[in-house]
Amino acid sequence: MTRRTWSVAVAGATGVVGEEILAMLDQRDFPVGSLRLMASARSAGKQVRWRDHDVVVEDLATADFHGVDFAFFSAGSAQAAHARRAAEAGATVIDNSSAFREDPSIPLVVPQVNPHDLDGLRVPGDRPRPGLVANPNCSTILFVMAVAPLERHAKIERAVVSTYQAVSGSGAKALDELARQGEQERTGQPLEAAVYPKPIHGNVLPFVQAFTDDGTTTEERKLVRESRRLLGRPDLRLTATCVRVPVRRAHSEAVNLVLERPVTPEQARAWIAAAPGVRLVDDPATLAFPTPRDADGQDDVLVGRVRRDPSHERGLDLWLTGDQVRKGAAQNAIEIAEELLRG
Amino acid sequence: MTRRTWSVAVAGATGVVGEEILAMLDQRDFPVGSLRLMASARSAGKQVRWRDHDVVVEDLATADFHGVDFAFFSAGSAQAAHARRAAEAGATVIDNSSAFREDPSIPLVVPQVNPHDLDGLRVPGDRPRPGLVANPNCSTILFVMAVAPLERHAKIERAVVSTYQAVSGSGAKALDELARQGEQERTGQPLEAAVYPKPIHGNVLPFVQAFTDDGTTTEERKLVRESRRLLGRPDLRLTATCVRVPVRRAHSEAVNLVLERPVTPEQARAWIAAAPGVRLVDDPATLAFPTPRDADGQDDVLVGRVRRDPSHERGLDLWLTGDQVRKGAAQNAIEIAEELLRG
Repeated sequence: MTRRTWSVAVAGATGVVGEEILAMLDQRDFPVGSLRLMASARSAGKQVRWRDHDVVVEDLATADFHGVDFAFFSAGSAQAAHARRAAEAGATVIDNSSAFREDPSIPLVVPQVNPHDLDGLRVPGDRPRPGLVANPNCSTILFVMAVAPLERHAKIERAVVSTYQAVSGSGAKALDELARQGEQERTGQPLEAAVYPKPIHGNVLPFVQAFTDDGTTTEERKLVRESRRLLGRPDLRLTATCVRVPVRRAHSEAVNLVLERPVTPEQARAWIAAAPGVRLVDDPATLAFPTPRDADGQDDVLVGRVRRDPSHERGLDLWLTGDQVRKGAAQNAIEIAEELLRG
Repeated sequence: MTRRTWSVAVAGATGVVGEEILAMLDQRDFPVGSLRLMASARSAGKQVRWRDHDVVVEDLATADFHGVDFAFFSAGSAQAAHARRAAEAGATVIDNSSAFREDPSIPLVVPQVNPHDLDGLRVPGDRPRPGLVANPNCSTILFVMAVAPLERHAKIERAVVSTYQAVSGSGAKALDELARQGEQERTGQPLEAAVYPKPIHGNVLPFVQAFTDDGTTTEERKLVRESRRLLGRPDLRLTATCVRVPVRRAHSEAVNLVLERPVTPEQARAWIAAAPGVRLVDDPATLAFPTPRDADGQDDVLVGRVRRDPSHERGLDLWLTGDQVRKGAAQNAIEIAEELLRG
């Protein structure tokens, strides 16, 4: 029996996340029949190797999406009009920007957490309906993956999150800047910062993306608002400090939870260990705890340091880390498409 | 009028903190009459330059402390017996290890926060009584410096802290390891970890010092217990996750506070800005926020990102960073001696 395949498009194909989507479509053996790639005019005309053939990159601004079944967009919020255009042309569009994440008419989904929010697009036994799905913010995906088992069993009363975010979250230019600053330090030159307002090499920046008018950052606001949507808790009490660290890839988060009922660390570990897409790495006796270098290239979100919070009888502290280019972006987008194909 | 001077000893003089104590005794113009240096047998006999002369390092194990007025110990908990011996020989000993920090009979002091806890050693118009003073843990000093103004005006109901701790906190060997791993990565070699259980270059480790039997780390426990003593709040509700980051010097902390009454960010900023030894660096409009590179070599603890906590009507989030070799260790020790000399 021949497997049914689909026409797939990747917009923003030459960026960090776009490249990862291409790699993971192959690794996960997504049923790609034909593949089209789009990017900005600057990259149009380039040839990109995928499996055994070369694909010419098209200009996103003028690309015609008729005939495309699945379009993975990782082209930034500024290209949201093209994502809409693709959906109107008949594609099921999974958009990695923040453009649609607060639109209540568009599902925001982590398949392991809120797959039912895709129900409006599902067509049993066939490809999903045309339309938009928003792929959440990277830090948010990792956070909800780790806490969803606890929310499910004991409900979160309040959460405090501090992030340790990798440079790859800011794209290839930022990775170049980190490497260049390392070289500048080694050779005794002054460190030049362009992508970030201050040097990131040998430093940490309590600032991710941009400030909003109330002194939080857009990243912090996304973590709060998108977690509320993903967990189905519009009133969820959550606060975050988002910090950039000189790590190339994989975000980490220190999470404090107050639950609605007391939960022992042993019980919490068992729930986390049983959750799909999450791996428990937590054994103080053997110094087992997860670090971003361990999560780099992994599909699973790694969770450890689960322990009693000495400040609250219903409190738990934990630590998580996950490859934000994979589960935090490309992988989650493909998992959304896979979930939709399950019908 | 000639200024009265004192006989000063520095034990652990060849370590990261010992060297900083020597530099700061000079920079702060501490009234040093004579200076003696002690270290392990391995370093005994070495000559160390201080101001315009060389001082021969003595073996701490056999050094006689009679005649010493102030002894600054930065020799680790294993040398606590020698700190006791120095106090019994008549010295006022300021010990930087954790050996005495939980002993209620020995003051644990940050002069800007709880100077009154030194009262038992004060002798107006003369040098203080012989005895021991414990210099707190580095992360703890920085934390209480930033939150003491808020505790004073509005009392802390609960605090959640996540740290971003520099490698210098683990001494010169760890700094060498960080540099060596950077070189190994640059030349395509595997990264070798010895001081830490995993590579610290391009990584973050949710593990500082050692695990206790309940899955917290000794560093996390110190932050909780020592903050309670320093703030005079034995019941203070506080939890911490302590994390090592690839920064050479200066620790940072993301702090969430729930206060006993609502406080606006503007009011909190005014109290912090008015506190001694703390500098407010907080203006989203000009992207002003403090980073560890800004704090490196500074006496003040830098505080920024003061903002409303969206999860609690009495909550505040803030960020701090401070040079943990200076205010987090050497500087605080010398400030204790200076405070005692004020009588």
